[in-house]
Amino acid sequence: MTDSNAKPDPALLKVAVVGASGYSGEELCALLDRHPSAEVTAVFSRQYQGKTIGEVMPRFSGLKIASLVFTEADPATVAACDAGIVFLALPHGVAAEYAIAILKAGKVVIDLSADFRLREAALYADYYGGDHPAPELLREAIYAIPELSREAVRRSPLIACAGCYPTSIQLPLIPLFRAGLLDSSGIVASSASGVSGAGRKAAVDYLYAECNESMRAYGLPRHRHLSEVEQQLSQAAGHKVAITFIPHLAPMNRGIHTTIVATPVAGKSAADLKKALLAAYADEPFVRIRDQAPDTKHVSGTNFCDIALYDEPRTGRVVILSVIDNLVKGAAGQAVQCFNIRAELPETAGLL
Amino acid sequence: MTDSNAKPDPALLKVAVVGASGYSGEELCALLDRHPSAEVTAVFSRQYQGKTIGEVMPRFSGLKIASLVFTEADPATVAACDAGIVFLALPHGVAAEYAIAILKAGKVVIDLSADFRLREAALYADYYGGDHPAPELLREAIYAIPELSREAVRRSPLIACAGCYPTSIQLPLIPLFRAGLLDSSGIVASSASGVSGAGRKAAVDYLYAECNESMRAYGLPRHRHLSEVEQQLSQAAGHKVAITFIPHLAPMNRGIHTTIVATPVAGKSAADLKKALLAAYADEPFVRIRDQAPDTKHVSGTNFCDIALYDEPRTGRVVILSVIDNLVKGAAGQAVQCFNIRAELPETAGLL
Amino acid sequence: MTDSNAKPDPALLKVAVVGASGYSGEELCALLDRHPSAEVTAVFSRQYQGKTIGEVMPRFSGLKIASLVFTEADPATVAACDAGIVFLALPHGVAAEYAIAILKAGKVVIDLSADFRLREAALYADYYGGDHPAPELLREAIYAIPELSREAVRRSPLIACAGCYPTSIQLPLIPLFRAGLLDSSGIVASSASGVSGAGRKAAVDYLYAECNESMRAYGLPRHRHLSEVEQQLSQAAGHKVAITFIPHLAPMNRGIHTTIVATPVAGKSAADLKKALLAAYADEPFVRIRDQAPDTKHVSGTNFCDIALYDEPRTGRVVILSVIDNLVKGAAGQAVQCFNIRAELPETAGLL
Amino acid sequence: MTDSNAKPDPALLKVAVVGASGYSGEELCALLDRHPSAEVTAVFSRQYQGKTIGEVMPRFSGLKIASLVFTEADPATVAACDAGIVFLALPHGVAAEYAIAILKAGKVVIDLSADFRLREAALYADYYGGDHPAPELLREAIYAIPELSREAVRRSPLIACAGCYPTSIQLPLIPLFRAGLLDSSGIVASSASGVSGAGRKAAVDYLYAECNESMRAYGLPRHRHLSEVEQQLSQAAGHKVAITFIPHLAPMNRGIHTTIVATPVAGKSAADLKKALLAAYADEPFVRIRDQAPDTKHVSGTNFCDIALYDEPRTGRVVILSVIDNLVKGAAGQAVQCFNIRAELPETAGLL
Repeated sequence: MTDSNAKPDPALLKVAVVGASGYSGEELCALLDRHPSAEVTAVFSRQYQGKTIGEVMPRFSGLKIASLVFTEADPATVAACDAGIVFLALPHGVAAEYAIAILKAGKVVIDLSADFRLREAALYADYYGGDHPAPELLREAIYAIPELSREAVRRSPLIACAGCYPTSIQLPLIPLFRAGLLDSSGIVASSASGVSGAGRKAAVDYLYAECNESMRAYGLPRHRHLSEVEQQLSQAAGHKVAITFIPHLAPMNRGIHTTIVATPVAGKSAADLKKALLAAYADEPFVRIRDQAPDTKHVSGTNFCDIALYDEPRTGRVVILSVIDNLVKGAAGQAVQCFNIRAELPETAGLL
Repeated sequence: MTDSNAKPDPALLKVAVVGASGYSGEELCALLDRHPSAEVTAVFSRQYQGKTIGEVMPRFSGLKIASLVFTEADPATVAACDAGIVFLALPHGVAAEYAIAILKAGKVVIDLSADFRLREAALYADYYGGDHPAPELLREAIYAIPELSREAVRRSPLIACAGCYPTSIQLPLIPLFRAGLLDSSGIVASSASGVSGAGRKAAVDYLYAECNESMRAYGLPRHRHLSEVEQQLSQAAGHKVAITFIPHLAPMNRGIHTTIVATPVAGKSAADLKKALLAAYADEPFVRIRDQAPDTKHVSGTNFCDIALYDEPRTGRVVILSVIDNLVKGAAGQAVQCFNIRAELPETAGLL
Repeated sequence: MTDSNAKPDPALLKVAVVGASGYSGEELCALLDRHPSAEVTAVFSRQYQGKTIGEVMPRFSGLKIASLVFTEADPATVAACDAGIVFLALPHGVAAEYAIAILKAGKVVIDLSADFRLREAALYADYYGGDHPAPELLREAIYAIPELSREAVRRSPLIACAGCYPTSIQLPLIPLFRAGLLDSSGIVASSASGVSGAGRKAAVDYLYAECNESMRAYGLPRHRHLSEVEQQLSQAAGHKVAITFIPHLAPMNRGIHTTIVATPVAGKSAADLKKALLAAYADEPFVRIRDQAPDTKHVSGTNFCDIALYDEPRTGRVVILSVIDNLVKGAAGQAVQCFNIRAELPETAGLL
Repeated sequence: MTDSNAKPDPALLKVAVVGASGYSGEELCALLDRHPSAEVTAVFSRQYQGKTIGEVMPRFSGLKIASLVFTEADPATVAACDAGIVFLALPHGVAAEYAIAILKAGKVVIDLSADFRLREAALYADYYGGDHPAPELLREAIYAIPELSREAVRRSPLIACAGCYPTSIQLPLIPLFRAGLLDSSGIVASSASGVSGAGRKAAVDYLYAECNESMRAYGLPRHRHLSEVEQQLSQAAGHKVAITFIPHLAPMNRGIHTTIVATPVAGKSAADLKKALLAAYADEPFVRIRDQAPDTKHVSGTNFCDIALYDEPRTGRVVILSVIDNLVKGAAGQAVQCFNIRAELPETAGLL
């Protein structure tokens, strides 16, 4: 998949991270620290300005990245840094103003937030509330799950990494829609996420004693991630697709388990669908089609997505299971994978 | 619901437990120990014969029940005990031979296993493997979820308590089917259970380090509990109902969370369905219809089932969430509730 | 222990709770709801004024207590309520002003906070910071672990329930000190607590993803609970006792496990110490002297304290292990036990 | 520490693993898979002979190591393999017969079991039961914690990696004993381990529902690891040292937290001890002396040991806290660190 003769542009190997103190940002720093080619030249934070990464995040003490000092995170300063690629690990609504400045400075943005995932500002307003902060950039941005949009990632200066739930839903479904194998009606995706998905913010709902020995759905009737999922499924299907999506919070730190129920189009079988998945991912290093039910623990700390598909002749439907680590393939790992592609490095660099 | 003038039959207040050392049996002993009217007169176990409950299960030390000595669990001995009601907390396939002997002795059986939940021996063989050990009793047995079959429980000598997953699925669905409000096609039930549901048996799959930080589906494509669910839904609907059911193992001790996606029949709305649930359970002490997403921790250690229903106008479907404690409402609590009914006690005795 | 001829004073059976929304307060409400004699006549809260308990705490929906409405929690209103005993489940520093008003109104206070556990205001200032809010009440208050100070509890209008860690440390050590069996030097108590011990407050440190898969000491070098432990051990020993106490946070909701290393006085053996513990607790319903290492899960949800003692001939020391549920024997259960004593009810009422 | 001019012996870069299917063996395979210089040329297993690593351990699917086929694990076959260094990740008592054969074949053994940690066969018999299977090798073997015995590791053909608890106890204590700063009496070490420490064996005690929401001591009065700890502390002190050691099982997958209470020798202060630790580990890449209480989550998945030391002027003692990942610095990571030293690679290769 990667042209091994390509020579990485040295400018693109210098990277900066804005918002390193959340769970995704921390995971991103960990991945970049042991990346063989990337050099983190700057980290930005409003809260931790002047402190080193090692002081703020004790687990990084002793690593190369530990001595980096957080710089004040204002857009102009970020845009002026010497990195060629800037990762934004910020809350939605905040990333956009940085992106504008960084793009103007001719740098590449890899955004982990939701700000540039939707093509329509109206859809953003509907799901996220308020006007989109930079609607003019929406059509420029690339929605990125590398396995599904590698070529676009290779060329784009504004890479909007897919959300965690959406990654776990689209990796199994998009190839089936593209191959015309899936009935677009009646699709149900029920997902369970580890609590790190809620971010590192002080809130009673995410206290240990509220989440341990607890399983609950949330975000009903319409979780924000539904917007990007339906946008992308519709694009792949060639027509409007509406699905039912129910996210749950499970008592674990990491991992997303998604269970999808869907129906093959008339004349197609579960075996046809499985064959299509095997074909789509035959050469992909991070997607594993399984014969057994996947387990989040088998992908925890990795950039893998494991997928299995079961026939259900009793109902004529199929059950598709997929698992990822929400902080890796669902966030920081996906971002590094995009970085590898954009910088013309081997796609698995620092990720296996 | 309970005739407060009825006088409990004293013979029925003496109870025995066969198989107290599993998780359901242990929970049953705990509930019976603090029950205001039940008297546990005998406990039976092959493994622990001659030991006291307090020795075998340290948490019971100091309770009334602690000094009871396990008697050898052979069917004849059990049948000859002085209890009027015998609880069977045994694996499927084992309960039947006890039931035969106990029923012959004129006592009542409350069975927590799967042995008498199915009406057809062929269905049992299909889902559980092997011939049913006592097919002649299948039509005599009563499938028991008290809220849905109270009158039958009141009269039957062979009460087959519903399974854990099936309880969480039927409590929301059966009233809707009975009211003719539910389209029987396209129903999906995705459930997550705490690990105690797998029983207290030494197996690598259920080790702490295999289940913690893990979420996985299992039992696909056809979990055993599907047989009783479809049997009962079909009966309520008046025609054959086939659903998709996917059980998952979640990293918690207790609790089942079930997420159901279904479609109202033409002309009926989510509001109609919610109204029907509210009406069905208005006077039920153990079913709570919620306005917010239920949480397994709110029913943990209780006999409650919490249910919420969400409209999904985008797809024309509804999302129904229900939670129970798998060891209480899904097993031992349901059994005690049946006992209360059968012994003409207040139905909530020992359960609130 | 309880004079079964005593007739409870009906006024004392009416109780009120101030601060029901924390974990201890919630547990207290649960225990009082199923208490056979207590009647909760009022609950007070600043935050939830006007709402019912059932609305604020979904798990209570459907219970007797659910329909109680939170009243504004100002001291005068609380003092004027019709309860004879008022439980204070408030943070330290806040309870005192309520206690003053309630005592003036001639009612009994059972305080779960730290405000009245220390005899000296200076010690309070040293460990808790700031002047004690009601130093004149300190000598009137009774430090309460019922097994160790039952008679005082029976008569006192101001009952200061011991803290969670201190209960787990004193139950094994006080009888040994009283019997003159323990060398007061070199005592080490290392405890691990479930996260509910940190309270229901929004703080990053207690988020699920910060506590899960984590074990850490905290409160070093001098946790607040050390003050009451040393005060009480010194009193029992008849001379100043200083110990080393290290609390840890363990990834569980409930439970305290305390491991104590100590040395018998010259001429005394581990067997002598065990005999003394067995004698001290022979008639106590809530303390169980074990032959095996105790496990927090065996006391979870109960008012038991389990204790084991091991000889270590290699070093001449003994290892003492004790476990409690921090929210029950370490807080709400202990408070109800005090209530039972003070109201002249059977001491186990509502607790077994 | 590492002579960067040394050229690794190519023969030593080929390694084999015996017993890859336990938790330590699995972690070892993960570390070796991403090691930049090591080449795993063979894996041995009785149970899984003929299967690939990817089949047996689904998390490895897609990695380089996944396609390796398990060979029958008999000592002669192992000894004849083309690796220069063989890792033994076997239960104690089993490793010895392999070691004999492998050493005879002129290869290096890195043993993760307890078989070669003790100098005296009698001590082994006392703590592990039964005669030592290869007493003649005991004096040849090197007890290995690289930070404490690097030179020995560099030369030895039989490297006995320290146990998990012992590593967490010795890293803080040995430098203090060597510097003559520690009173050898009255030392208490209280440790808590994640459940992976119990190994991947089917046993009711380690089921999820037995370990979750549970904290318990075990192995009292004398855990096996005590033998090696006292042997090594005594050697460092120059006289017999006896300590109190209490291991606990905590509800987490990974991590050991050790809390040590000790007394400086007369005339020395906590500050002297901290200075000595800082000096001892100033150049060590894997030991971090902390100012705050360490947290197992900060070392999870890493080869770090984090240590903090607190003064306790009230008692004249110090409290020392140390944390490691039991499967990495406590087992597989330590083994790879030894491998790096033995093969004259940079000591951090594959570990940062």
